[in-house]
Amino acid sequence: MKDFPEPMERLIQEFKRLPGIGQKSAQRIAFHVHRVSREDALRLADSIREVKDKIKFCGICNNITDVDPCRYCTTPGRDPALICVVEEPHNVLAVEKTRQFRGLYHVLHGSLSPLRGVGPEQLQIKSLIARLKGGNIKEIIVATDPNVEGEATALYLAKLIKPLGIKVTRIARGVPVGSELEFADEITMQIAMEGRQEL
Amino acid sequence: MKDFPEPMERLIQEFKRLPGIGQKSAQRIAFHVHRVSREDALRLADSIREVKDKIKFCGICNNITDVDPCRYCTTPGRDPALICVVEEPHNVLAVEKTRQFRGLYHVLHGSLSPLRGVGPEQLQIKSLIARLKGGNIKEIIVATDPNVEGEATALYLAKLIKPLGIKVTRIARGVPVGSELEFADEITMQIAMEGRQEL
Repeated sequence: MKDFPEPMERLIQEFKRLPGIGQKSAQRIAFHVHRVSREDALRLADSIREVKDKIKFCGICNNITDVDPCRYCTTPGRDPALICVVEEPHNVLAVEKTRQFRGLYHVLHGSLSPLRGVGPEQLQIKSLIARLKGGNIKEIIVATDPNVEGEATALYLAKLIKPLGIKVTRIARGVPVGSELEFADEITMQIAMEGRQEL
Repeated sequence: MKDFPEPMERLIQEFKRLPGIGQKSAQRIAFHVHRVSREDALRLADSIREVKDKIKFCGICNNITDVDPCRYCTTPGRDPALICVVEEPHNVLAVEKTRQFRGLYHVLHGSLSPLRGVGPEQLQIKSLIARLKGGNIKEIIVATDPNVEGEATALYLAKLIKPLGIKVTRIARGVPVGSELEFADEITMQIAMEGRQEL
């Protein structure tokens, strides 16, 4: 005998597949879904279906979008000579939140990771190079994650892009603003020391 | 301009309504839904719909079920003279896991809480009393939560049921097995002292 009625068990199993949701949370959410109005529950179900139906990738920058090209690529006033390269679509938001960057984006959809079998062919690198060759691009800001894979990807891109005569920069790594030195790990601290700037 | 394309925003908002899921988790899950196969995503959507369509409450014990009466009420060999009263459907599982209890259940769907406007009429108390008057019931085990509302509900039920000549018992409260006394709060400790049993 299963713990709960079949449809409930199935819903719990489906929620458990989602990232960051374990058995207890899945149960709690499934019971919540059962408790709320039919309308509320079906709105969730329909939103899932809608994302699968309507969200695609931008033909220029590979960001997720419901219109192609995406709204970043088509916003007037953004500088097409400046491209910020990120790993994932949600990383675009992190850069946008600074409200400082007014260039365009390119989403790689991952980072180089030989251990997980991710090589340059699995990433949107070919489309980036095609973009660079096609336009008057002055600078590529590589904003991949500050971890081993992200650094490797940044170095790989720099090697590939510099010969095209385009400036390649990397976002600064160091101690995060608002934190305390006491909690900085030694590698971050070392990079912060190396990257020191004159006041 | 919204952070993400409309359908993505809607899905994030829907996930945010679920218990224990904040903005970051909702984003992470929505992106996951977008990344997985269409088949996997729609299976989640369909499971939600199925729960709303097929899960109802048992006409006898008010537990959630896809057949009425539920499988607990209809399993042969369970003792119909013994009823364990719990607050929520998932509490049934906690009792079942002991593999000791072979009676039936009654789900109240909440606990008395005047502050939140939950009185006896909002709970499945009337149906419990009807059940008691209808059958040869010997004992009611009140397994409501060991908090203020759960205790109040237990006392209320005892007052209501004892006059019917039925034994009403409450699950033991005390220090949890496997824990350390050092971490027991003072009220639990006090109750554990008061409820001491001779060895």
